[in-house]
Amino acid sequence: MKNKSITSRDEDFAKWYTDVVQAAHLAAYSNVKGCIVMEPNGYAIWEKIQKTLDEMFKETGHQNICMPLLIPENLMRKESDLINGFAPEVAWVTKGGEKDLDERMCIRPTSETLFSDYYSTIVKSYRDLPVKYNQWCNVLRWEKETRPFLRSREFLWQEGHTIHETSEEAEQETRLMLDIYRKFFEEYLAIPVITGKKTEKEKFAGAEYTLTVEAMMYNGVSLQSGTSHYFGQKFSKAYNIKFLDRNNEWQYAYQTSWGVSTRMIGGLIMVHSDDNGLVLPPKIAPKQVIIIPIKESETVSAYVSTLEKDLKDKGLTVSVDHSDKSAGFKFAEAEVNGIPVRIEVGDRDLQEGKITLVRRDTREKIEVAKESDISSKVIELLDTIQKDMYDRAKERREEFTYEAHNYSEVEKIMNNHPGFVKAMWCGDPECELKMKEIKGTKSRCILENEKPIDDKCVVCGKPAKHLVVWDIQY
Amino acid sequence: MKNKSITSRDEDFAKWYTDVVQAAHLAAYSNVKGCIVMEPNGYAIWEKIQKTLDEMFKETGHQNICMPLLIPENLMRKESDLINGFAPEVAWVTKGGEKDLDERMCIRPTSETLFSDYYSTIVKSYRDLPVKYNQWCNVLRWEKETRPFLRSREFLWQEGHTIHETSEEAEQETRLMLDIYRKFFEEYLAIPVITGKKTEKEKFAGAEYTLTVEAMMYNGVSLQSGTSHYFGQKFSKAYNIKFLDRNNEWQYAYQTSWGVSTRMIGGLIMVHSDDNGLVLPPKIAPKQVIIIPIKESETVSAYVSTLEKDLKDKGLTVSVDHSDKSAGFKFAEAEVNGIPVRIEVGDRDLQEGKITLVRRDTREKIEVAKESDISSKVIELLDTIQKDMYDRAKERREEFTYEAHNYSEVEKIMNNHPGFVKAMWCGDPECELKMKEIKGTKSRCILENEKPIDDKCVVCGKPAKHLVVWDIQY
Repeated sequence: MKNKSITSRDEDFAKWYTDVVQAAHLAAYSNVKGCIVMEPNGYAIWEKIQKTLDEMFKETGHQNICMPLLIPENLMRKESDLINGFAPEVAWVTKGGEKDLDERMCIRPTSETLFSDYYSTIVKSYRDLPVKYNQWCNVLRWEKETRPFLRSREFLWQEGHTIHETSEEAEQETRLMLDIYRKFFEEYLAIPVITGKKTEKEKFAGAEYTLTVEAMMYNGVSLQSGTSHYFGQKFSKAYNIKFLDRNNEWQYAYQTSWGVSTRMIGGLIMVHSDDNGLVLPPKIAPKQVIIIPIKESETVSAYVSTLEKDLKDKGLTVSVDHSDKSAGFKFAEAEVNGIPVRIEVGDRDLQEGKITLVRRDTREKIEVAKESDISSKVIELLDTIQKDMYDRAKERREEFTYEAHNYSEVEKIMNNHPGFVKAMWCGDPECELKMKEIKGTKSRCILENEKPIDDKCVVCGKPAKHLVVWDIQY
Repeated sequence: MKNKSITSRDEDFAKWYTDVVQAAHLAAYSNVKGCIVMEPNGYAIWEKIQKTLDEMFKETGHQNICMPLLIPENLMRKESDLINGFAPEVAWVTKGGEKDLDERMCIRPTSETLFSDYYSTIVKSYRDLPVKYNQWCNVLRWEKETRPFLRSREFLWQEGHTIHETSEEAEQETRLMLDIYRKFFEEYLAIPVITGKKTEKEKFAGAEYTLTVEAMMYNGVSLQSGTSHYFGQKFSKAYNIKFLDRNNEWQYAYQTSWGVSTRMIGGLIMVHSDDNGLVLPPKIAPKQVIIIPIKESETVSAYVSTLEKDLKDKGLTVSVDHSDKSAGFKFAEAEVNGIPVRIEVGDRDLQEGKITLVRRDTREKIEVAKESDISSKVIELLDTIQKDMYDRAKERREEFTYEAHNYSEVEKIMNNHPGFVKAMWCGDPECELKMKEIKGTKSRCILENEKPIDDKCVVCGKPAKHLVVWDIQY
């Protein structure tokens, strides 16, 4: 029983993606060009992501804050790399009320400028450091194309900004946050990721260096899924974040920033979902279990309400579909919405002493005795689903991870089935550009702790400096 | 021991207010004109408010959603009352990237237009109704003055928007949400409120009528703290939200919207705080208990860590101030930050078999035996504080609630000590304007269920229609 509103994933991946987004009511296109409406099913996933990550941030000593939405132009211009990087894609407010503004303001594309300006006012001594703040907010970048969750003018994210006494401490923070992202992707989103350093060309405008979390989608294409930047003293010099150090001398603070966005929801879809709609890992699914009564007899109703209570008492998020739609319709709806476990309860089954659990990820049906310890079985099943989803994604990633030793090998791979191509690089941006000619292949990251696989650059053949993962990207 | 950084509340209320905001690190003025930075202590209160209200919304069947930040001008103009009401105070984006826009867009001052436009695309039949969505977001209104939490260009709020099959159901929703606000103010914020209907002059642009929650601040001035609007079919006609009803005929949907904002934090401060800083009701305080060890001996540390664990196990939010500041400094800091209960643990006290609990609201010190059931005592004390804070606010409100039967009585009252003046009104906007001449006195709301106190209008002496509460306002 294939969902008819969804194009086959293997036939047309891009169309399949938008079909899933719409069929599962995650987002809708809006009449505001370039912007989407995040519908309840989509926003509920974001709420779950927020809650989980927010706890991880707070456990590691971060606090939330709220900075203004608008940035006056002169404030934006203080750090030249940043404004050069973002100028082509910001929206400008030039009129407030009925008056032209003396100075135009942009809607934040990111908030390094505002945080830096604020930090310069609150830090005086090394005793005031570190400052580790984060904000959950909307940002805006004037993109030309719109793909729900992947690329839209406005999106939601979190941006952490910290300042420290020493470079060592700031660099530790940069790595700590990368590690939190990795953990979150692997343990909650069931998405295996690689982490590493961006090349100079691909790093964030204004950063000394950028660390990144990269995930491979079902079709082999890479999604940059989270970044953690080390700024050194670049912003603190531009924005005058100075403090008296332990020797009573003025020093500029060392700074970091790091962020993940609603783009992760796009990643979730493109890694796990299938031709029947959304598939969500149980740890991030807003609704983990749905009970579907097949015709509401007294016996069925009584059994269902006891079961619902029992599952809720165990801390699961459960709902019961009491609507008057047909059972088949309800099954398909639960499926398209990606609810990890569906429980079917029917009169005949109950008479035979059983009910049916259905896994969303494999669509496997499991009959269990109606008098058995259902809630323990469901909890176990959710754990299995979470683990299996991660394992399957990892297997697939390994299937499409390659090694290449020369340019034509890369061409062959990318023309066959794109994926992560490990290949050596000399460090010359020209070679990076040359790779781009292969269907837009870009460096994803420099792998820092893996052994070199060759001693020559995959493009020019000169001595290699770095082992790099290459892929095309969203 | 008076906090020296805070002006006396009775001397200069406005200055006292900003002093408290800054001394408790709730918010800072930013270099973005008209906008504030919500600092961690302030934002944590907002997070607690959000969490509590969000649960109340979800329990009553509402779901969260996320609409775009920008509204194209033609979409904004479809409902003329709304655009006329908001035009003077919106910010316009006229440039995206390096290009002038074909059509300018405003930053949302409120989102009736976007919700209505979206609803027109998702509703086809009475079976699709009701739709009850809410969003937590930032909005922007080009205000001239800035007062943290009370008035700033950007603020955070929630806006609920619902559509219904019948006017009865929509009106019920309008009242239900008003009631949720009232309950939240009274039970969580410990602020007694009056509720009623706004006059035609004071209602929301585009609403059939507006219900309001009004709270009296310590100085007698009123703060409009939350509103719930009934729109009838006004927006659904302008934005074409049509559905096939039970008779298979096209109908326009009935609509509501309702919102509360970070303004509530301003209300919290102005109702409860004092010359020593912030005072927070325990149910909304991000941190309920702080333990302050007086010199960290082994005995003190051991006792403190057992106590901390015990309080946390009971579900309280607790922290221990392990810093090397002096005890006196720590006490003052806990006080200015409004932590409801402070626990002082010292060596000498422990030797004498006791510790000290200090209430923030009354600053009363309570000695308790160190071996007694401290956590139960703390829980009881927090309940008492919550209740006492409400009772004191209510007593004060009653002290400054008056009845007036003619204009000069109103003048006398407002010149002496402003407050809620109950007085009859004929319904003529001219009389409302005349009241404004008395220091800006405005109608707060029409009391719907109270007995008339007179039969003549307090201004013109003609037959009265409504019992109205009047006051000056923030």
